[in-house]
Amino acid sequence: MSRIVTVGAAQMGAIQRADSRAAVVKRMIELMRQAAAHGCDVVVYPELTLTTFFPRWFMENQDEIDTFFEREMPSNETAPLFNEAARLGIGFSFGYAELTPEGRHFNTSLIVDKTGRQVGKYRKIHLPGHREPEPWRAFQHLEKRYFEVGDLSWGVWNAFGGLAGMMICNDRRWPESYRVMGLQGVEMIFVGYNTPRHNPPAPDHDRLSEFHNQLVLQAGAYQNGTWVVGVGKCGVEEGCEMIGATSIVAPTGEIIGQSLTQEDELVIARCDLDLTKSYKATTFNFDLHREPDQYRRIVEQKGVIRPSAD
Amino acid sequence: MSRIVTVGAAQMGAIQRADSRAAVVKRMIELMRQAAAHGCDVVVYPELTLTTFFPRWFMENQDEIDTFFEREMPSNETAPLFNEAARLGIGFSFGYAELTPEGRHFNTSLIVDKTGRQVGKYRKIHLPGHREPEPWRAFQHLEKRYFEVGDLSWGVWNAFGGLAGMMICNDRRWPESYRVMGLQGVEMIFVGYNTPRHNPPAPDHDRLSEFHNQLVLQAGAYQNGTWVVGVGKCGVEEGCEMIGATSIVAPTGEIIGQSLTQEDELVIARCDLDLTKSYKATTFNFDLHREPDQYRRIVEQKGVIRPSAD
Repeated sequence: MSRIVTVGAAQMGAIQRADSRAAVVKRMIELMRQAAAHGCDVVVYPELTLTTFFPRWFMENQDEIDTFFEREMPSNETAPLFNEAARLGIGFSFGYAELTPEGRHFNTSLIVDKTGRQVGKYRKIHLPGHREPEPWRAFQHLEKRYFEVGDLSWGVWNAFGGLAGMMICNDRRWPESYRVMGLQGVEMIFVGYNTPRHNPPAPDHDRLSEFHNQLVLQAGAYQNGTWVVGVGKCGVEEGCEMIGATSIVAPTGEIIGQSLTQEDELVIARCDLDLTKSYKATTFNFDLHREPDQYRRIVEQKGVIRPSAD
Repeated sequence: MSRIVTVGAAQMGAIQRADSRAAVVKRMIELMRQAAAHGCDVVVYPELTLTTFFPRWFMENQDEIDTFFEREMPSNETAPLFNEAARLGIGFSFGYAELTPEGRHFNTSLIVDKTGRQVGKYRKIHLPGHREPEPWRAFQHLEKRYFEVGDLSWGVWNAFGGLAGMMICNDRRWPESYRVMGLQGVEMIFVGYNTPRHNPPAPDHDRLSEFHNQLVLQAGAYQNGTWVVGVGKCGVEEGCEMIGATSIVAPTGEIIGQSLTQEDELVIARCDLDLTKSYKATTFNFDLHREPDQYRRIVEQKGVIRPSAD
């Protein structure tokens, strides 16, 4: 028996600062309707879907910063998305900036099942960029300033007939993110991202942005025997180019669906969750083959400790 | 200033059971001379270079098993390799089955520097395959029977003007192997392998053998900002086809050298160790971006623990 989950990866083009949440939600609904028309079970949107990627600016006024955050979910502005999903009977996952009642700020994503129930929440752990403004950069990347490190670990939930989890953007470059979910039997990982092509401290990496994106998604999928759905917010946002390369990756490590544009675009794939089984049962049978005692350095040490010179 | 290490990846074709160690060492020396003639600093050979890949057979007689092991290194049979390296002033790394004075069996590899000094030893940690014979298989993969799990962790040593480490074969599929060395600042990883194309419990993976080999080498290189030199023993050995796909991978994740044959073949690349710097200093600056507290499941748990069903 196969367990097919038809996934719609809803890449989104640029969202400018002047774009209202209502306008963004309207675009999201348009993609959701396409997904439903194609028989998708779930539609996956990018990181921080509702606004422009605001960590590119240094802002000191907390009220101004908080205009990019959501105090409730759904809110008045996002309720139409939730309502449309319920009407269509489709699940979805998307990212947003979360401001909690306690005043804490997280880069967050949700999984909502076909009944409209929020089955999973994740708060981004690997915050890239920097904390203090660096005026020499053409644009900032102040995620470490505007967000706290997520406090929910990487969860895995029963959803869409399988086990689903989430990562956000930079998490995907770290094999630890996949492995923590792999150790919970994850079968599909949703990962939204906002990835500027230009990395100011390492411009020599720019030509490889899409390659690096796909390399880590593919390796994470294969090494954990899981589907991985990577979804970009892309195009030129406020003068900053962000990569697309939305990719649906099988547990084989193969990319079986990918975007062609830098705009709103739906990528569809029929994902058989049972394809995960032969990887999880053979090469990556963790019970048989992992050696956790040998991995202690991974948790006991944060930075590099070089061997002493001879 | 660049720090170029010119690497010769010495892929080796099939070694049959009847082939003597002297014959194998002669082939290794031929490749070493090619490497020296091309100005290589180090020549890297595969896993268990000296004999056929014997874990494909179930043997019960320990004396017979031990014929595949080395009791000393160098031995009379391998001394010509060490001597030729000293004469040429070239470093090398190779794998062999090690039988210690205490009677312990390991799947081992060495790094020997240009002065002939053994600077590093590694004993394979991720032993694939099975412990008990499984007669339904066309051939066995009894590494878990014939070897103990390595007891030296993954070391990193000063060699060839940089920091070098080793993995062996199946280790390369596990991101933990790379990370333990990445946390020691590794700049080049040597990994030899014997990888049968056909994996009896998962024949649907066979068409992807080379892809999986290169995917994990590339991801491990990029995610740790290190060079990775993957070297296969390949061709048809005792009726069992093994993949080549010897690959030299840059810290960018790009394959910059690879083999074309299934035979003895030298692949050369000039590897600038300073290319590791921008990856280690930016995207993969572990001090800034790792979150070890969030990785605990990786060491606290061996197998999969699924969330409870709703």
